[in-house]
Amino acid sequence: MPQRITIADAARHVGESVEIPGWLYNLRKSGKIVFPILRDGTGIMQCVALKSALPEDVFEELKHLTQESSLIVRGTIRAEPRAHGGYEMDIESVEILQKVSESDPYPITPKDHGVDFLMDHRHLWLRSQRQHSIIRVRHEIIKAVRDYFDDHGFTLVDTPIFTPAACEGTTTLFEVNYFDNDKAYLTQSGQLYNEADAMAFGKVYCFGPTFRAEKSKTRRHLTEFWMVEPEMAYADLEEIKRVAEEMVIYVVGRVLEKRREDLKILERDVAKLEGVQAPFPRLSYDEAVKNLQQHGSEIQWGGDFGGGDETILTQQFDRPIMVDRFPSAIKAFYMAPDPDRPEVALGVDVLAPEGYGEIIGGGQRIHDLDLLLRRIEEHQLPREAFEWYIDLRKYGTVPHGGFGMGIERCVAWICGLEHVRETIAFPRILYRLRP
Amino acid sequence: MPQRITIADAARHVGESVEIPGWLYNLRKSGKIVFPILRDGTGIMQCVALKSALPEDVFEELKHLTQESSLIVRGTIRAEPRAHGGYEMDIESVEILQKVSESDPYPITPKDHGVDFLMDHRHLWLRSQRQHSIIRVRHEIIKAVRDYFDDHGFTLVDTPIFTPAACEGTTTLFEVNYFDNDKAYLTQSGQLYNEADAMAFGKVYCFGPTFRAEKSKTRRHLTEFWMVEPEMAYADLEEIKRVAEEMVIYVVGRVLEKRREDLKILERDVAKLEGVQAPFPRLSYDEAVKNLQQHGSEIQWGGDFGGGDETILTQQFDRPIMVDRFPSAIKAFYMAPDPDRPEVALGVDVLAPEGYGEIIGGGQRIHDLDLLLRRIEEHQLPREAFEWYIDLRKYGTVPHGGFGMGIERCVAWICGLEHVRETIAFPRILYRLRP
Repeated sequence: MPQRITIADAARHVGESVEIPGWLYNLRKSGKIVFPILRDGTGIMQCVALKSALPEDVFEELKHLTQESSLIVRGTIRAEPRAHGGYEMDIESVEILQKVSESDPYPITPKDHGVDFLMDHRHLWLRSQRQHSIIRVRHEIIKAVRDYFDDHGFTLVDTPIFTPAACEGTTTLFEVNYFDNDKAYLTQSGQLYNEADAMAFGKVYCFGPTFRAEKSKTRRHLTEFWMVEPEMAYADLEEIKRVAEEMVIYVVGRVLEKRREDLKILERDVAKLEGVQAPFPRLSYDEAVKNLQQHGSEIQWGGDFGGGDETILTQQFDRPIMVDRFPSAIKAFYMAPDPDRPEVALGVDVLAPEGYGEIIGGGQRIHDLDLLLRRIEEHQLPREAFEWYIDLRKYGTVPHGGFGMGIERCVAWICGLEHVRETIAFPRILYRLRP
Repeated sequence: MPQRITIADAARHVGESVEIPGWLYNLRKSGKIVFPILRDGTGIMQCVALKSALPEDVFEELKHLTQESSLIVRGTIRAEPRAHGGYEMDIESVEILQKVSESDPYPITPKDHGVDFLMDHRHLWLRSQRQHSIIRVRHEIIKAVRDYFDDHGFTLVDTPIFTPAACEGTTTLFEVNYFDNDKAYLTQSGQLYNEADAMAFGKVYCFGPTFRAEKSKTRRHLTEFWMVEPEMAYADLEEIKRVAEEMVIYVVGRVLEKRREDLKILERDVAKLEGVQAPFPRLSYDEAVKNLQQHGSEIQWGGDFGGGDETILTQQFDRPIMVDRFPSAIKAFYMAPDPDRPEVALGVDVLAPEGYGEIIGGGQRIHDLDLLLRRIEEHQLPREAFEWYIDLRKYGTVPHGGFGMGIERCVAWICGLEHVRETIAFPRILYRLRP
């Protein structure tokens, strides 16, 4: 039996007789030759089948093979500089596992399909080259993020998905019936737990799915999305900004290093990614508001940025920008106020360039017990649910903070996608729970 | 200002004057010397404070400092072979951030506390050395699992948490109100989606939280637990077993290599882990049932193993065992039957030694369209919900399979823990949703 290889490994098997299992991606014919184009999940390879080299019935079957039929091709690998990927296979034999029915053909054809049709067929759409490249870039981003934190002394501490209390209000929470009429909410952020973990481990991160029952349909929102959240004891806002900047640069660098082919398939302008270097421009909220007003936004001091505002701001810079010191009133109850100017919070947002908007939000947390108690009261939060969180300010409280980075928005930016729905295998949005 | 370092990094700073921020873990006194034992999340270090070296008020404050008070110590690192960790600091100055109140002291003291008390104080309990070691081993296991799959050509494809249909029955599902009276269920397994992903990418894995509304309280069950699930196109049962075995050996090896200190703190018998080598004993279900009956179990052919059965079986071997070909009737609808003996399924369970029981379950999936349709009917599943899954058998179906490994059970086994509740930072079990 010939050795079984993958298309990605073909370079190491030139001149060898091997077999590759896969699916028919496309087929070209030219008289006494057919060129089945095979995909196997690792790549795409053109094969060459000569009528003279195969039994007549096999050649005929191959000639009429339908898209996405499953087959194993056996033959010799040959370098072919003109070919996609640089290699071809001269077919010696073929085993067809399933010919897709001609009367019920593979539904996704090279012609244009509408977004709804593609989303309904997401389980098949994932086989296309463009979707492959996006998912591979996503994988690289996740790996790079984890490597960054693992290599910088952070301990991974998974935070719970089922939470009894809300981190930031209850209107966008998904509710779950726990046992015996107890209620749980799906986490929107691991941050409160991260704070307990940071007091135990110094530097921690969590990385998992988070949920937001967002009733709006925008190109930036999913109801289920993945987020990485580092948290550091004994860290101030400047340190938080330093880590966020360093991590983003590391992640973009890794994708450029490992996934350049995929960025090419996605027709991403890599020059823009190569420009993602330190230092990121740093603006205060005050400066950002002035800038926006000058560019025609109707934002007033005290208001939060809309998607349009983020676009206006980020289009002026060639790299991500960091905006800090937002009004405390529009930020969460746990945000530490600036001691010199308590009306603003020691928080920071990182906005991706090219109009992609917020990818990171974070800041310093309140570590003073009395101030935290006051804020819980002001925000009319049920103190009982926060007793454990308050404990962290009683037993060795220290300045601390961190941030959260949304993976799907990061993938959308790095891949240059218009909508986050393509950044995850099975996106969940308003009214879309299937497949 | 002296350089800020961590305790884990002390070895590289011997003879240097540095500062370490942390918390007071313990304090010994001896006349004109106090020995504050500092923890900073990366380790524990004894410091030495001479009365003659410090201002009198600082020395007095230090002398009466309470457990878990936050402080920054500054001084010179000295190698001290007799000390825990091998290094000590001669304190030159101290900055106390918060002295924990003597009237409301840190609730977890060196004395024994009951499990309920500790679980209620999980946010603080995580600061103890034993819990540190468990979480660090968990981190290493997760990292090793991901590295294994990343290095063996698997693509990470995150599967959805919100699912419209049940993978294995609905009795243990958590239900969520989606929008406008639609219902979603929290995933119990990414497998069905993994199968779509494997047809697109060849070899894939997903790794995330999964949920089971288990109404039983056992030492092996959480309602929220993490699972890694690889899935491979063109793979048969033997290949699935090979990958499972190789991965488990790799993971155990990595923990032994990187986390030996933590295993020591946990008083784990590492000789038992060092024995986890290929080949794992392979038993058929038939053989396992005979074995159990000989050892006094009341199991009959056709029944599933209870926790007690798993204990009996695994205590006979010095390494994990693989049991395959369970009765089809007790396995999920998608399990491929053995072509030579259709009453058994091409499934495999991996049981950890020392009585830890099942850590992996998997097998080959049905890839024949007609058989799958028959099974969906026999199991009275709503066909409409499975149309997308059926598509995978219409458009280039191939033999395929994979498995799932529960992370918490794996952590419990490798750490030698009696109960899974300590394997995750904030465990969720029946009637326990807090903190």
